[in-house]
Amino acid sequence: MSAIIESLLWRYAAKRFDPSRTIPADTWQTLEQALVLSPSSYGLQPWKFFVITSPTIRQQLPDAAWGQTQPRDCSHFVVLAARRTVDADFVQSWVDRCAAVRGVPPESLHGLRDAILGKTSRMGHEQLPWTSRQCYIALGFLLETAALLRIDACPMEGIIPDRIDRILGITDSPWTSVVACALGYRSPDDSAAADAKVRFDAADVVVHC
Amino acid sequence: MSAIIESLLWRYAAKRFDPSRTIPADTWQTLEQALVLSPSSYGLQPWKFFVITSPTIRQQLPDAAWGQTQPRDCSHFVVLAARRTVDADFVQSWVDRCAAVRGVPPESLHGLRDAILGKTSRMGHEQLPWTSRQCYIALGFLLETAALLRIDACPMEGIIPDRIDRILGITDSPWTSVVACALGYRSPDDSAAADAKVRFDAADVVVHC
Repeated sequence: MSAIIESLLWRYAAKRFDPSRTIPADTWQTLEQALVLSPSSYGLQPWKFFVITSPTIRQQLPDAAWGQTQPRDCSHFVVLAARRTVDADFVQSWVDRCAAVRGVPPESLHGLRDAILGKTSRMGHEQLPWTSRQCYIALGFLLETAALLRIDACPMEGIIPDRIDRILGITDSPWTSVVACALGYRSPDDSAAADAKVRFDAADVVVHC
Repeated sequence: MSAIIESLLWRYAAKRFDPSRTIPADTWQTLEQALVLSPSSYGLQPWKFFVITSPTIRQQLPDAAWGQTQPRDCSHFVVLAARRTVDADFVQSWVDRCAAVRGVPPESLHGLRDAILGKTSRMGHEQLPWTSRQCYIALGFLLETAALLRIDACPMEGIIPDRIDRILGITDSPWTSVVACALGYRSPDDSAAADAKVRFDAADVVVHC
């Protein structure tokens, strides 16, 4: 069995973290880089990642997560936030970045910029759902990278975005919380760690044609 | 730099594939297992993965993908399809599977089953957006695993779900196409391979608090 699959079989959604253990800085750096390098539509990266380690902030999080204790007890709690809209300012900032990184004149990217803005403007209220889906790709990268590094994780949809946004001070910003992930080390008494992983038979999920 | 980050820096969205090259069976097996092992909310796996290698089917795909040629020229084309609704039958099939894998009586999972059904029924028309987001986690797993294995990939949102559904014969099924991914080997003349990867400065994307 490949080392990758071994890692993916090892992982599970940790329910209880060991509050005494912290992810070492160099390991954390790799996880953060995986987030930054995640793919997104057009490579637009319509997201921000809030990495919360402050005990004061973390104490407030269970109330914004239906009482779940993972945000408080894990080592690093990541909130993946999406752009509410993909507007001209944001796309221009991305075009400027492309031009700088690739050493081309920004004007050479105006056609692409206008095509993206045309698309997002046609999307109307579907912009946030679209940017939110991009965050789930980044969540996948974060979870797989964590598994490869043998860092425990708990992906958490059970957050209350309005409350998290207030805690993060982004209520009136272009960003809003979409999904979160607690990372760290499982508590020795997390009984979920012993549960067999449940997946449908591959034959029921994968169709070859 | 870690081998993981090296892989993530290596990857890019391949625009042109080499139609003469096929992913070896054992490598494909690992990619498929990564899809099957992808996490999802509750572990429900509200998805099906269509792996298309048939030349007859692949010839039809560019028309369902705004003329893009990756589905035709890649080695394996994956369509990630989501449940349109998470209904009682589906959740029961998942509960039965949990019970069988974990060796517990299905009745012991009825509380969880009812909680999930309560949640999805409150979601109403938000069920497909929710199951679609889960597919993006699987897309993340597929893309990261491909990069680790040095398999080229092109995630593709630019598909026309109705047409893909018709080609796959799932129009009247509980499943619908959400997003796709071409996998294989880049063509030597894919100029996109030489483009520098563009990411915002980590300091603009990651907020520590």
